[in-house]
Amino acid sequence: MIGRKVALIGASMTRFGNLPEMDLLKLMVEPSLAAMDLSKIDLKGVGAIFVSNMLGDALSKQTSLGTALSDALGVYGIPAERIENGPAGASALRYAYLSVSSGESNIALVTGVEKMRVASTDVVTDYISSMSHPYAEYPSGATMPSLAGMFARLYMNKYGVKPEHMGMVAVKNHDNALKNPYAHLKKKITLDYLFGKDAATNNPFVADPIRLYDVAPISDGGAALVVADLETAKQYTDKPVIIEGYGEATDRLAVHEREDPTELRAVRVASQRAMEMAGVTPQDIDVAELHDAFTILEIAESEDVGFFKKGEGHLALERGDTSIGGKIPINTSGGHKARGHPVGASGIAQIVEIYWQLRGEAFGRQVEGAKLGLTVNLGGFGSNAVSFVFRRA
Amino acid sequence: MIGRKVALIGASMTRFGNLPEMDLLKLMVEPSLAAMDLSKIDLKGVGAIFVSNMLGDALSKQTSLGTALSDALGVYGIPAERIENGPAGASALRYAYLSVSSGESNIALVTGVEKMRVASTDVVTDYISSMSHPYAEYPSGATMPSLAGMFARLYMNKYGVKPEHMGMVAVKNHDNALKNPYAHLKKKITLDYLFGKDAATNNPFVADPIRLYDVAPISDGGAALVVADLETAKQYTDKPVIIEGYGEATDRLAVHEREDPTELRAVRVASQRAMEMAGVTPQDIDVAELHDAFTILEIAESEDVGFFKKGEGHLALERGDTSIGGKIPINTSGGHKARGHPVGASGIAQIVEIYWQLRGEAFGRQVEGAKLGLTVNLGGFGSNAVSFVFRRA
Repeated sequence: MIGRKVALIGASMTRFGNLPEMDLLKLMVEPSLAAMDLSKIDLKGVGAIFVSNMLGDALSKQTSLGTALSDALGVYGIPAERIENGPAGASALRYAYLSVSSGESNIALVTGVEKMRVASTDVVTDYISSMSHPYAEYPSGATMPSLAGMFARLYMNKYGVKPEHMGMVAVKNHDNALKNPYAHLKKKITLDYLFGKDAATNNPFVADPIRLYDVAPISDGGAALVVADLETAKQYTDKPVIIEGYGEATDRLAVHEREDPTELRAVRVASQRAMEMAGVTPQDIDVAELHDAFTILEIAESEDVGFFKKGEGHLALERGDTSIGGKIPINTSGGHKARGHPVGASGIAQIVEIYWQLRGEAFGRQVEGAKLGLTVNLGGFGSNAVSFVFRRA
Repeated sequence: MIGRKVALIGASMTRFGNLPEMDLLKLMVEPSLAAMDLSKIDLKGVGAIFVSNMLGDALSKQTSLGTALSDALGVYGIPAERIENGPAGASALRYAYLSVSSGESNIALVTGVEKMRVASTDVVTDYISSMSHPYAEYPSGATMPSLAGMFARLYMNKYGVKPEHMGMVAVKNHDNALKNPYAHLKKKITLDYLFGKDAATNNPFVADPIRLYDVAPISDGGAALVVADLETAKQYTDKPVIIEGYGEATDRLAVHEREDPTELRAVRVASQRAMEMAGVTPQDIDVAELHDAFTILEIAESEDVGFFKKGEGHLALERGDTSIGGKIPINTSGGHKARGHPVGASGIAQIVEIYWQLRGEAFGRQVEGAKLGLTVNLGGFGSNAVSFVFRRA
């Protein structure tokens, strides 16, 4: 690719959770101002705005969020748009990358936002399911949890994954979230809590074998990144986080039409592309945020990005390889599972966490000496994936 | 800016109108396949997909349209997203430009789509109004027609524009649409029809002074462009249409907060930027498509892009300067007013028209010898504008 090196110079997020006092605009403005303030840039320096959001029109009856954020910040005369890729909001950073890399802008703002707790769980689940196949899945009543149930069942049959392995993802990510002040779910859980004698009440089935604690919560939240070309970046910080590579890939929309429905091909292709562009291998990565909207997805992705052989992710998890202090810590933020999953903001929040980790600012959950970080953000049930590789300068 | 020259090598659109037989997916697939077929590219050659759409989730309960189109075309492993900028869907071409210019892809597909006639006029009008200011306009019941009414009244008071001038835009654009097989409204109208003794029934008030024929219809439709770097483009056609410049700019979201509410500052800034990048002046442009969601907007934009002095657009219209055969023909397609206005597709359809004009393929409405074309696509009530300058190779 032709263009300039691009880096992150600021990052921030709101607490994720049930935030009745925050509407869409406030959820965008608060982290945007904080990220700009932390990066020390002048408001007038922002050359382009990219907003990632999935359901603003359907749930909050608000469109043109890019323009609305530009207006609320008082930055006029610049490009500003909304990008929607299901929950794969990290797509917005791809555009900021292209804008800054090409010289269209020198500094860009990327803000992810979702206001979900304005509607009931069934309404939100229905709208989220609107990213499934419009003929082959959605009209048959396929929801994301029901697809996850079938996906998990296949995984269990094929690779010997047990419900307790999915539970281990939840326990690990809840533990990590306890150390993250921005996380939605701050609750210590144990395998005994999830599968012991009170399992039926503590952890009821959502879509067998998927149980309540296998599913990310419905959250409100916003997250923001300040992006700059490397030369500009160095004027503002001696700790820029460099975007070394990215990749995005689509797969078949309907899960049952995939050659091997247990393989997340989009994750494999997007991550390979990102690592190839960065000139690194999966074994070089020090810390990763993967898209654990369902616990089984973290296990599957840890294989499809190449950290572990296919079918062995659950064994690595068992060994503690993916815990903080392990070989390749995954979802130190708590992940979508426990940090929360405001769909348009989650992909940006993953990158905020990696930014903190690579700058040594992930207090209490820091991966010591982390130099290279990777994020994987999914759209649909794996029909689209966006991966990024970041390096500490 | 750094990067390669970028050109259009294919363009197509569905007929715009009330298309009950076409859902969102069909409205995307039909023009996409046609544009790819006309450009003679191989399906496998598509390196990225950009879908512009405003209301898919709210009106059709469908999200992730980029992924859905990638899947329907059978092109996997590529980036594919949806861009929303109110009705400023031409934003999607900006991203395709950046993708192709940077070398991220060599060939990209840009598809605009909107399925509006699934809901009643009041529901659609409400959702369209969701791009107004979320505190200062929308909750007060401001709709796009009501804002247009106030805008037109100011224009009439300040510049001596008369209702008949707005009617002249409608008459001209309806005339042009009669020569466009893809247009929604195929109806010859006259000033007597609009303002004669039957005006109250033929052309009732919507928001005084705005009447029925001052407002674009609510349409279904899809439109698509195939974009390539110039070197690749030349392998497929000896008539590429080169993207010489583009600009996008935001303005204050709330119309009444603008210093001069009759000035479309976003249009001025975006168009100046596009022409500066292209190295041309307004007087060099041979044909233009402007965003006439309301007839008064065509008059205002014809001034703000620099074709005419501020306040003199209606005089130029009177003289026939903007008719086919005039000095600078505007909206030869029929414009949003008569070609139709499926909001996410309209901005792409404008570019399809310019593509045809610059290749000499606008049969029956051809601007003879057209070499340079300009498009202006609005978001909100002028709070965002996207301009492009195209040149015949």
